[in-house]
Amino acid sequence: MSRTFGSEAVARFTVHLASGGSYPVAVGRGASLEAPDHAVSLKISRCVVVTDSNVETLHAEAVRDRIAERGLETHIIAFPAGETNKTRAVKEAVEDRMVALGCGRDTAVVALGGGVTGDLAGFVAATYMRGIPCIQMPTSLLAMADASIGGKVGVDHPSGKNLIGAFHPPAAVLTDPSFLHTLPLPEFRIGLAEIVKSAVVGDAGLFEELEARAAALAEGDVAAVEAPLSRAIAVKVVVVSEDEKESDLRKVLNFGHTVGHALERISGYAISHGAAVSIGMVAEAAMSADLGILDEPSVRRLATLLSALGLPVALPRDADPVRVLAGAATDKKARGGRLEFALPRSIGEMARTDRGFGVPVPDDVAISCLDRMREAP
Amino acid sequence: MSRTFGSEAVARFTVHLASGGSYPVAVGRGASLEAPDHAVSLKISRCVVVTDSNVETLHAEAVRDRIAERGLETHIIAFPAGETNKTRAVKEAVEDRMVALGCGRDTAVVALGGGVTGDLAGFVAATYMRGIPCIQMPTSLLAMADASIGGKVGVDHPSGKNLIGAFHPPAAVLTDPSFLHTLPLPEFRIGLAEIVKSAVVGDAGLFEELEARAAALAEGDVAAVEAPLSRAIAVKVVVVSEDEKESDLRKVLNFGHTVGHALERISGYAISHGAAVSIGMVAEAAMSADLGILDEPSVRRLATLLSALGLPVALPRDADPVRVLAGAATDKKARGGRLEFALPRSIGEMARTDRGFGVPVPDDVAISCLDRMREAP
Repeated sequence: MSRTFGSEAVARFTVHLASGGSYPVAVGRGASLEAPDHAVSLKISRCVVVTDSNVETLHAEAVRDRIAERGLETHIIAFPAGETNKTRAVKEAVEDRMVALGCGRDTAVVALGGGVTGDLAGFVAATYMRGIPCIQMPTSLLAMADASIGGKVGVDHPSGKNLIGAFHPPAAVLTDPSFLHTLPLPEFRIGLAEIVKSAVVGDAGLFEELEARAAALAEGDVAAVEAPLSRAIAVKVVVVSEDEKESDLRKVLNFGHTVGHALERISGYAISHGAAVSIGMVAEAAMSADLGILDEPSVRRLATLLSALGLPVALPRDADPVRVLAGAATDKKARGGRLEFALPRSIGEMARTDRGFGVPVPDDVAISCLDRMREAP
Repeated sequence: MSRTFGSEAVARFTVHLASGGSYPVAVGRGASLEAPDHAVSLKISRCVVVTDSNVETLHAEAVRDRIAERGLETHIIAFPAGETNKTRAVKEAVEDRMVALGCGRDTAVVALGGGVTGDLAGFVAATYMRGIPCIQMPTSLLAMADASIGGKVGVDHPSGKNLIGAFHPPAAVLTDPSFLHTLPLPEFRIGLAEIVKSAVVGDAGLFEELEARAAALAEGDVAAVEAPLSRAIAVKVVVVSEDEKESDLRKVLNFGHTVGHALERISGYAISHGAAVSIGMVAEAAMSADLGILDEPSVRRLATLLSALGLPVALPRDADPVRVLAGAATDKKARGGRLEFALPRSIGEMARTDRGFGVPVPDDVAISCLDRMREAP
């Protein structure tokens, strides 16, 4: 399949690692065309394009052919699409295929797809011969805005998401909104939730831009999302650069996710990540207001934007607040039984205490906030 | 089982990481008694002692009980002994057990055993919740002298050893020669080969000490090995501190291993690692002499010491030199088809070229050296 890419300027960011290294993030239409240049610069002789069965049909051959044109032996390794395949068994199957192809340390992985592919393929790269380079090429808005940056890779375990994984910074992240034209609208909206999160965490101007474009964004308008996406990535790049190992600042990226992950889990993942994070952001903003950290109008403003983007802001009727909170407490972010949240102090700035960006919230406050948010019967 | 430990002084080393971190290596009788202190200092609430079925019987309960006495919930997870169990499947089984025990990021792994245990348990720690601390407690001489230091962890693949793995620096390495009293003599000798390697790589005085103690060492005398072991560890600590990621200096540790790994592989691992490395060191020293880098008497001196230690120095009759060399070329250390070796320029110092510590050896030189070393028919 051939594709036509625009010629707009590509925005460029650099993630700085605690180890002293760095990697580039290119964002804009045409960024994916840079994959062959990056592959060649790695001084490797082969590439494997790891992708899922959906993206394989849409984009994988074009990516493979472009890299192969530069003289690198390039293969596609596809696995069945879906989060249920983000497993150790599928990781092994990809590894076995790479071994069968004779891949050595002269090989790079190109992770072409959404968050599942980025996490799985990145984890394969992290442990293949103790680590080979990985070029992240996200194709979903969620992966573009969030998952592809930061080096967190891994697979799920029957008992929990991302239980087995690693930190493996990519060699490069190539974020090309052209891929979004084939993304289904529900998945587009999931990505919008993460862009809103970045706005609340660190860019009040982005929040205003999202408000101004909400109608177009809610319809999945790719042109309308390009500038906000780039700004959201800028926020994430700053956060992960300052705190590669998530010891503290990176906690701000958990905004909406402590409640969100619990909601996903207790629903058996029937509720999407984007919907869960949307509800979670409103809940956690309400906690911040109840604690006197955030003003009430900001909570309403956040809920209004999320609704306008087509995202849910009410707790499902069958989600018991006590169970949600218990679910959050079993999340790996809870250490020593003390439940901490990343809470905004205003739109665009997160609260910081003497102990850092994790703010303890009493159980009764959290439950009260969740309870007030329940759907009308 | 209760054990009595001596009160000798424990030698202390520090491995410095490229990332700026570091970890301690304690060597001496009684070093294993420090495990509870290290565990407590990690601010965790649980430990899992990962061990194999042999070491479980000998030492695991004592280690567990000592840690548990300090208030940490501590469990033993044992897997069947043997290199054939250093697999992804066994790694998964250990992970599943940890999940079932409710282990979170508040958990540390204690790797109690030989090289297989250190590699497997270290790899479990490397990827459990994206990495938890691992205390290495080697019980074999090979693991003490070599494998436990440096952060290389992983499992085997049917197509090659250590194909899947990571760099995961331990939180601490506690090397207690008291464990060697239960080590079978053939395994003791395997470890001696690595101590000889360290001497050739970086400590001429250690080489002399090994010559002086050869008779006692060949018999598995634990008291005789303590001082040489500590000196060998000192060499390794310096090498891995200067070059955590094996970009160059760490290549010197491959001395004897390029030929050695090939021999192991083409024998289907019927030949032990220590025997293969012993033969490999003589072969590679001979290459160095043929290239005019090392003097001939040093080659003979090396072979004499290895023989005195009960290690083989002749190429098995059925090992075809051409096949050995081809086997070495498929090793992951070969990049771009160019076969390089780590070669000594004298006992205690490795050769360095403009391009670093990998010295290219023409095929005909390598084959000639291997051919001259074949066992008499």
